[in-house]
Amino acid sequence: MKQADLLYTGKAKSVYRTDDPEVYIMKFRDDITAFDGGKKDTLAGKGRYNAEVSTFIFRYLGEHGIRTHYIESIEPGVIAVQNLTMIPLEVIVRNVAAGSIVRNYPFREGAPLDPPVIVIDYKSDAHHDPMLNDELIYALGIATPEELDQIKAMALAINELLSKYLDLRGITLVDFKMEFGRSNGRIILGDEISMDSMRLWDKETGASLDKDVYRFEKGDVMETYAGVAKRILSAPWGEVK
Amino acid sequence: MKQADLLYTGKAKSVYRTDDPEVYIMKFRDDITAFDGGKKDTLAGKGRYNAEVSTFIFRYLGEHGIRTHYIESIEPGVIAVQNLTMIPLEVIVRNVAAGSIVRNYPFREGAPLDPPVIVIDYKSDAHHDPMLNDELIYALGIATPEELDQIKAMALAINELLSKYLDLRGITLVDFKMEFGRSNGRIILGDEISMDSMRLWDKETGASLDKDVYRFEKGDVMETYAGVAKRILSAPWGEVK
Repeated sequence: MKQADLLYTGKAKSVYRTDDPEVYIMKFRDDITAFDGGKKDTLAGKGRYNAEVSTFIFRYLGEHGIRTHYIESIEPGVIAVQNLTMIPLEVIVRNVAAGSIVRNYPFREGAPLDPPVIVIDYKSDAHHDPMLNDELIYALGIATPEELDQIKAMALAINELLSKYLDLRGITLVDFKMEFGRSNGRIILGDEISMDSMRLWDKETGASLDKDVYRFEKGDVMETYAGVAKRILSAPWGEVK
Repeated sequence: MKQADLLYTGKAKSVYRTDDPEVYIMKFRDDITAFDGGKKDTLAGKGRYNAEVSTFIFRYLGEHGIRTHYIESIEPGVIAVQNLTMIPLEVIVRNVAAGSIVRNYPFREGAPLDPPVIVIDYKSDAHHDPMLNDELIYALGIATPEELDQIKAMALAINELLSKYLDLRGITLVDFKMEFGRSNGRIILGDEISMDSMRLWDKETGASLDKDVYRFEKGDVMETYAGVAKRILSAPWGEVK
């Protein structure tokens, strides 16, 4: 499998074709952005930590029956993934009220959301990722009702697995974002799940263990990412019942 | 039935208690606002035209089996309505892409939406009426899944009746907003349906026949409201099959 031309470059990752049309190479860059691109930096080592955590989580999910695009790790910060036709949705599952949901609606910061709340945004830089509802998703032709049902069911199953895993490591999964794609008519988890896409709080101290440290300058970003990566990778997932 | 103290004053209507706790008086004022209150005016006669059209539409819907809060007309611009516990949702049905849906998503202005698209906003001046999805409506405790299903079914039935009626009068119902309330465990159509809450286009010319004339200074607002009121009230609804 030989890396070929750059297919796509996003805010924090680049995707390359390979000589196998079914396989892409995904590079986690050290770029970090926030506030719809309003804040940007490069932090040495960030890509590697996110790749490591995302790889670990995708393997964990895969072992638990979730279809993901992950194939294998190539080198630090670089993985091989399945070529998916991406669905332009940002699927967010929220277990605790924080961030935009508290700014936009009368939820109290830190209030538990039970059952978890799914919010889906349209992934479009041009439109600034506006929120969607099911009817708009159908009208825009983004997904069929059957596909959307499957995406939501997968999102909740992933949330259940991941919340339990992180809870055992003293971390609350406040909310996180997923992206899905299609391959041969199947819905498959794509993109990444990392400190850039999860909101994580330390169960004891409530401290942010994610990109909020960068957004709101709450401390040393790389120290936080290194620490949380170590905690997430600290034990075999076989422990999780 | 004697009008008593002012219960609530909104952007364009005031609601009063009466000596019957089950009955309120609703006054359609001549105030008109747009852009989240950013533009405001008073136009003599506006309240009367909106009351006339809303009364006509609520009676038409009532005759076709829809539960509404309308009881009777008291005098021009003033009606008696049932006391409802209002549900803080703005339920918008869209038959043609126009307005915010075109600004926020890749729909082409004027594109037909078939089936019609329901978009629901949270009615809250403090939060600037943000869009909701079903899961947020449940998490905020605004409505149960059974209630929301009923609200959506009623909204689509009302849209069907109203679209047909207006189409026969040469008017396209592009989109419109409804508000619902509860009384004795039943969902009932409340608020108003008027030129302030419908987006109406002349079928022949495409001209705006609604508050867009005020929003975007497309012509004489009162001339438009008077003309469309006349067209809507022009024939007995028995004609509509």
